[in-house]
Amino acid sequence: MSDVRITVWNEYRHEKEDEEVAEVYPDGIHEAIAEGYEDRGFETRTATLDDPEHGLTEEVLDDTDVLAWWGHRAHDEVDDEAVERVVERVLDGMGLLVLHSGHYSKPFKRLMGTRCSLKWREAGEKERLWVTDPSHPIADGVGEYIEIPEAEMYGEHFDVPAPDQLVFTSWFEGGEVFRSGCCYARGSGRVFYFRPGHETYPIYFRDDVRDVLANAAEWAAPGDGPTPNYGNVEPLEDLSD
Amino acid sequence: MSDVRITVWNEYRHEKEDEEVAEVYPDGIHEAIAEGYEDRGFETRTATLDDPEHGLTEEVLDDTDVLAWWGHRAHDEVDDEAVERVVERVLDGMGLLVLHSGHYSKPFKRLMGTRCSLKWREAGEKERLWVTDPSHPIADGVGEYIEIPEAEMYGEHFDVPAPDQLVFTSWFEGGEVFRSGCCYARGSGRVFYFRPGHETYPIYFRDDVRDVLANAAEWAAPGDGPTPNYGNVEPLEDLSD
Amino acid sequence: MSDVRITVWNEYRHEKEDEEVAEVYPDGIHEAIAEGYEDRGFETRTATLDDPEHGLTEEVLDDTDVLAWWGHRAHDEVDDEAVERVVERVLDGMGLLVLHSGHYSKPFKRLMGTRCSLKWREAGEKERLWVTDPSHPIADGVGEYIEIPEAEMYGEHFDVPAPDQLVFTSWFEGGEVFRSGCCYARGSGRVFYFRPGHETYPIYFRDDVRDVLANAAEWAAPGDGPTPNYGNVEPLEDLSD
Amino acid sequence: MSDVRITVWNEYRHEKEDEEVAEVYPDGIHEAIAEGYEDRGFETRTATLDDPEHGLTEEVLDDTDVLAWWGHRAHDEVDDEAVERVVERVLDGMGLLVLHSGHYSKPFKRLMGTRCSLKWREAGEKERLWVTDPSHPIADGVGEYIEIPEAEMYGEHFDVPAPDQLVFTSWFEGGEVFRSGCCYARGSGRVFYFRPGHETYPIYFRDDVRDVLANAAEWAAPGDGPTPNYGNVEPLEDLSD
Repeated sequence: MSDVRITVWNEYRHEKEDEEVAEVYPDGIHEAIAEGYEDRGFETRTATLDDPEHGLTEEVLDDTDVLAWWGHRAHDEVDDEAVERVVERVLDGMGLLVLHSGHYSKPFKRLMGTRCSLKWREAGEKERLWVTDPSHPIADGVGEYIEIPEAEMYGEHFDVPAPDQLVFTSWFEGGEVFRSGCCYARGSGRVFYFRPGHETYPIYFRDDVRDVLANAAEWAAPGDGPTPNYGNVEPLEDLSD
Repeated sequence: MSDVRITVWNEYRHEKEDEEVAEVYPDGIHEAIAEGYEDRGFETRTATLDDPEHGLTEEVLDDTDVLAWWGHRAHDEVDDEAVERVVERVLDGMGLLVLHSGHYSKPFKRLMGTRCSLKWREAGEKERLWVTDPSHPIADGVGEYIEIPEAEMYGEHFDVPAPDQLVFTSWFEGGEVFRSGCCYARGSGRVFYFRPGHETYPIYFRDDVRDVLANAAEWAAPGDGPTPNYGNVEPLEDLSD
Repeated sequence: MSDVRITVWNEYRHEKEDEEVAEVYPDGIHEAIAEGYEDRGFETRTATLDDPEHGLTEEVLDDTDVLAWWGHRAHDEVDDEAVERVVERVLDGMGLLVLHSGHYSKPFKRLMGTRCSLKWREAGEKERLWVTDPSHPIADGVGEYIEIPEAEMYGEHFDVPAPDQLVFTSWFEGGEVFRSGCCYARGSGRVFYFRPGHETYPIYFRDDVRDVLANAAEWAAPGDGPTPNYGNVEPLEDLSD
Repeated sequence: MSDVRITVWNEYRHEKEDEEVAEVYPDGIHEAIAEGYEDRGFETRTATLDDPEHGLTEEVLDDTDVLAWWGHRAHDEVDDEAVERVVERVLDGMGLLVLHSGHYSKPFKRLMGTRCSLKWREAGEKERLWVTDPSHPIADGVGEYIEIPEAEMYGEHFDVPAPDQLVFTSWFEGGEVFRSGCCYARGSGRVFYFRPGHETYPIYFRDDVRDVLANAAEWAAPGDGPTPNYGNVEPLEDLSD
């Protein structure tokens, strides 16, 4: 049992509009991800784009330690106010896991400050995620690599700030590499970008991927560090002499 | 002689409205900074908030290798379109030097993705900037520390991403510390935040400060690295087998 | 209760030879540190320089998750074989906490690869450790700063590799700053350098310092990441085409 | 013309003892590397293992800004005193470029503090080095990637500290990835590890590889930062009150 409370957010459009996707994720990508968390003892809820306020109300965020974000084709439909709410929460300590095509989501781009662009190709090719930091807790219980037989390719250059820690680096059959597991501290919060996952591949049903997502949630969960004071302050030392 | 072309941007309001400031910087803070660059052989121009398009036209930016940014009380008056132009240029390789109260400027906040908050106090106290990375080119020609007899205090926590390199750390008489020289790579560009400087202290006339600004401009000047291709790409290897 | 098993290592010479030190740490610095761990529910043992094999036998290390290291005047008396044992264990995942004058200990210098030099002064002056990374678990439960009324000063430049994360930065009354809480990943292990503590000040009896040491032990405890294979390997892909 | 003075060090054994290697590098690997530097306007000399003091006398090091190091089978024959000389010079500011199998050289292991292990395979397979930091000066003039048709494979996990900047990441035909261009600041010096190059492949004759080596030399050349004072110091502020 974990005491980390997860909210899995999904844009939930492909699954309703595309039969091929619906076959892979009949209940939506969010339910597949949520199932992985529930199986690992996390208190888990879901929210989607078409919920009121995208399901990202103050109340929901109050009860969220870590928010997992999946979006792809409707990034622009996410209301800026909701984005701002999410970003503020992250800076205040909420964990954020950005999944696959979430690299172009508004909250991620806001928090990175860069374009977050990359190369991509849908060819059902093999991906192998190598652990490049075996000391990192997100790699707990993982082998030397995770092999995914069919994946969408994402290739460098990935236009993000250099990660604070780089946990995974991907090899792709078609000749590219990618920084696939990237850790960032932002404000009092922690952000993890994890590459695998696509609407047409059953990647979020894999145990190894779910294990990484569980590790990442534990890592990103809010700590109990100081809440800094900002603004005008009195001196701590006597300035009169 | 340097072949780096500098544009010094200044909000230029305090100097016109506040007599005390006008005495310290009669021609504006931008002219003091620009003089330091000219003396060191840089091709230098200036631009201010009240110029058309804030002086940040496409033409000016085309001729700018490194943009130095000073603002304080009128951050909100900087047009979002100009901000976007600057940010895009930085991601494409233009250097950006963010000076003192520029920590709250729109371009810096956009590129950092955090709140960029800090503690502050105006008490004319002593600051000592210690070099914490003597291997860094921005510390070239600097002593072990730079001592500024009267400065506005900025104190931690400074809410920015951990810098890629930390060149200076400040000690303040009143009891605080601050990460005062912070390097960031963003996209193809480089950003340097440098703390010293305030409208009521003649800090930008100091030779040691001007030397650091010159070093920073050389460091931040655009390189000749690859321009990455993004988007859908063909495989580099045969995927047919 | 923590399931992290601590071994506190102390050179234990000052306390036996210097009356002033013996008054501050009558049972030795190791016992003061160990008491802090025991009070916080850690399984704790101690070892000292004059124990057989310095108390750092294979058996002891087998039962150690995190080793805390205090040494000052007798670094050179630590046997190179014991040092090698400790370093190998760290690279295999054991946590290492290096305390105060341990900056010059053989294991720390071996793991850093640099000289680990610094400035110092014994003048009973005030130190204030500011949290420069409030998102880091080692800062859990800590206020914005820890104030130590009387401390030995350590000043920059501190000749270590740039830390992977910088949790604390110290202010000193005499005018210096110092990177006081430095995190490093090395191999499968994690190393934390923590500055406070000296044989003539009762710093290791402080609750705030003990809290940080407990946080650091939890952070540095071995994970369950992959044990990489090294050396000659067969291809994972068919190279025949 | 560059004013950076290069010394190319080579163990120079394979070339004298193995016919296949002698055909690829008839004058030794050091001469091929030196030629690349000379062509690019660097003042260049060479030194080899079997020279007196391995060619690494105080006099030679006095005239060296950047030392490039190639070794493979005779790392253990390098005298510890020479290693110490090199390491001390690096910490004092001399640049060090560690090439390919130099990952196991004594100076590199000393400066990294880790085992520097990796996976390897000699199968003449394809390597593609992707630029993962297009803002870095070592990537100047390089395309999005460098493709080497036949290379020895080096695979992760590479047991080094996380690089300060990661300029290249390699893809290998056989399924592995590798952090191939790693920047480190150590003391006042800079170290660059560059993976390509092997005694049986003519990689050091390639213009793109030589360009990177030239960029790396410019980047690693000694700066003019402060020479820190270490040891006991007087306070900079009055401690009497």
